[in-house]
Amino acid sequence: MKIIIDVMSGDNAPLELIRGALQARRAFDEEMILVGDEQVIRTLADENGLHLDGVRVVHAPSVISMEEPALSVVRDKKDSSMSVGLHMLANGEGDAFVSAGNTGALIAGATLIVHRIKGIQRAGIATVLPFTNPCLLMDSGANLEVTPANLEQFAFMGSRYMEKVLGVKNPRVGLVNNGSEANKGRELEVDAYLQLSDADVNFIGNVEGRDIPFGVCDVLVTDGFTGNILLKYTEGMGRFLLGTMKDVLGTNILTRLSCLSMKGKLHHLKNAFDPSEYGGAPLLGISKPVIKAHGASDDMAIKNAIRRAIDFYRSGINREIAVFSLGHEASMKQRAKARARNERIREKAERAARRREENEEPQA
Amino acid sequence: MKIIIDVMSGDNAPLELIRGALQARRAFDEEMILVGDEQVIRTLADENGLHLDGVRVVHAPSVISMEEPALSVVRDKKDSSMSVGLHMLANGEGDAFVSAGNTGALIAGATLIVHRIKGIQRAGIATVLPFTNPCLLMDSGANLEVTPANLEQFAFMGSRYMEKVLGVKNPRVGLVNNGSEANKGRELEVDAYLQLSDADVNFIGNVEGRDIPFGVCDVLVTDGFTGNILLKYTEGMGRFLLGTMKDVLGTNILTRLSCLSMKGKLHHLKNAFDPSEYGGAPLLGISKPVIKAHGASDDMAIKNAIRRAIDFYRSGINREIAVFSLGHEASMKQRAKARARNERIREKAERAARRREENEEPQA
Repeated sequence: MKIIIDVMSGDNAPLELIRGALQARRAFDEEMILVGDEQVIRTLADENGLHLDGVRVVHAPSVISMEEPALSVVRDKKDSSMSVGLHMLANGEGDAFVSAGNTGALIAGATLIVHRIKGIQRAGIATVLPFTNPCLLMDSGANLEVTPANLEQFAFMGSRYMEKVLGVKNPRVGLVNNGSEANKGRELEVDAYLQLSDADVNFIGNVEGRDIPFGVCDVLVTDGFTGNILLKYTEGMGRFLLGTMKDVLGTNILTRLSCLSMKGKLHHLKNAFDPSEYGGAPLLGISKPVIKAHGASDDMAIKNAIRRAIDFYRSGINREIAVFSLGHEASMKQRAKARARNERIREKAERAARRREENEEPQA
Repeated sequence: MKIIIDVMSGDNAPLELIRGALQARRAFDEEMILVGDEQVIRTLADENGLHLDGVRVVHAPSVISMEEPALSVVRDKKDSSMSVGLHMLANGEGDAFVSAGNTGALIAGATLIVHRIKGIQRAGIATVLPFTNPCLLMDSGANLEVTPANLEQFAFMGSRYMEKVLGVKNPRVGLVNNGSEANKGRELEVDAYLQLSDADVNFIGNVEGRDIPFGVCDVLVTDGFTGNILLKYTEGMGRFLLGTMKDVLGTNILTRLSCLSMKGKLHHLKNAFDPSEYGGAPLLGISKPVIKAHGASDDMAIKNAIRRAIDFYRSGINREIAVFSLGHEASMKQRAKARARNERIREKAERAARRREENEEPQA
């Protein structure tokens, strides 16, 4: 298979991305296609003693910055590494795409260039929250407002990804909510609870903020606004608490010395809260695998993201999602039809009741 | 002044609440009114050698449990400690009310029995997030859906509380959002950003999840759904990270021994993430001080909550809020009038333009 990498994306572009791609080539023995400014890529590789033999380099003269509007990917930046890479994926010149760039542009580009799976109403970003029992959060920022049907689709797609790509058997799905009871939340959560209870997923109910870190579920669905706040807060809280802990332990010479012996484990704990460790977040609902690597990704994170892209492609979950979404679309149409029929019956009965009343009244 | 305490509320009722009230009486030398089952209170006090001299006990036979619907406080549980206490506050038999009970019932009861300050559209819960630089989160759960005008009122009330009760000069107000730019967020955040920029508060802009723990602002406004998730996630993440840290340090005999010497400081860190340390959350927007203590409150937490109730009463911020809200109401009416006038002018101009076109057409 062929992985397309947007090497001009993220804070450490392009050197760390080139390194990551070359490491992935050696480790996984799959073809890598580097998209970006060819001269910059070749010069940097030369200067750093990196060999590009057996790696295809595709020239794209411009880059989409983190500040640019999402739609630039299909408007004035069609010659950017992201846009060129996505077009290659759409045209079948590669099997999966990895970028550490502008999230909004990546979602817009994936949707408009590569397209959603038929029947999927919204594509979303699925990010692993790095607890002892990892939990896939979807949507973590693509769709600020969603419908219960969107959440049902997120739940199905997230479940397939957790099972087939991350190896979690029969993943438990939770709904982010402000209480555990079925009637809690906004209209969105109340309706989504009912819909998820009927859906073809292992729904375990509402999950409150305080329970999220303790492995109560494997897939956590919510709107992209709440998801984005949760995801970034996880990063912030991790950094804050580990920093405070370091300060407390550092005030005492004994603990300071003894913690030196634990450096490896403490470093590991710190890394556990670095989202790049989980190898990037898939955009679920797009017809081909697209992986968003963290903006701060180094070579290791890019290599991990490429590994996920390979696993995602091999898992074949997009075929399962396509089958599900056709059924889901049909069942939604059926439910809408049933609602309309019930409505007609109700109206007819009401009209009949009114007529009876009108007929009876004069006699009364 | 007189503080009314719902001693039957929370997980540790009534003994810890009686203890807390008696400690507060000694520490702050103000009158305490304990509301609850009088026989239970007196028997427990006797058994535990607690002297109720100089403390008024008011009998209320029933209790609202954590599971009961919010409106029970004004329906079938009018004889509950919470309802009786709130009526005493409304009637002027006390100056402030403290409860560790059912949050929904407390908000409903405070709104329907004690009433909101005139002009305040929604009362909200304001909770201190326990970072190095404490930050007041409002709303943390009372109103799942809000308007930009609600957020503007929260920002003003939260600012007055931070300045006058917690002593933060010219508190900085942030809006929880999924990005820092002005145009980020849902329609709610986009509109609230504009409204907060014009408001009589020190608005510093949008705050992303990853920045919340690092003291970027003193008051953080958001809807009650997002606020509730944030608040409970803070608790969960704190517990999770400190637990993991303990496990890591505990695996090594050297760190385990040296950490024993740090027990006090580590315990302090743990407590910093216990919301009860901040002495309860005020319901801002209610005409008299109502403080929600954490459900798990012990005697110390109750004493702290009573301290906040005293500070809140003495601060006189409710008078400031009343003056603000009248002005806010007037300015909102004025803004609505201006919008309506502009609309009329626009329509008149359009009609005139249409007439001109119609008159010109036949000649063309």
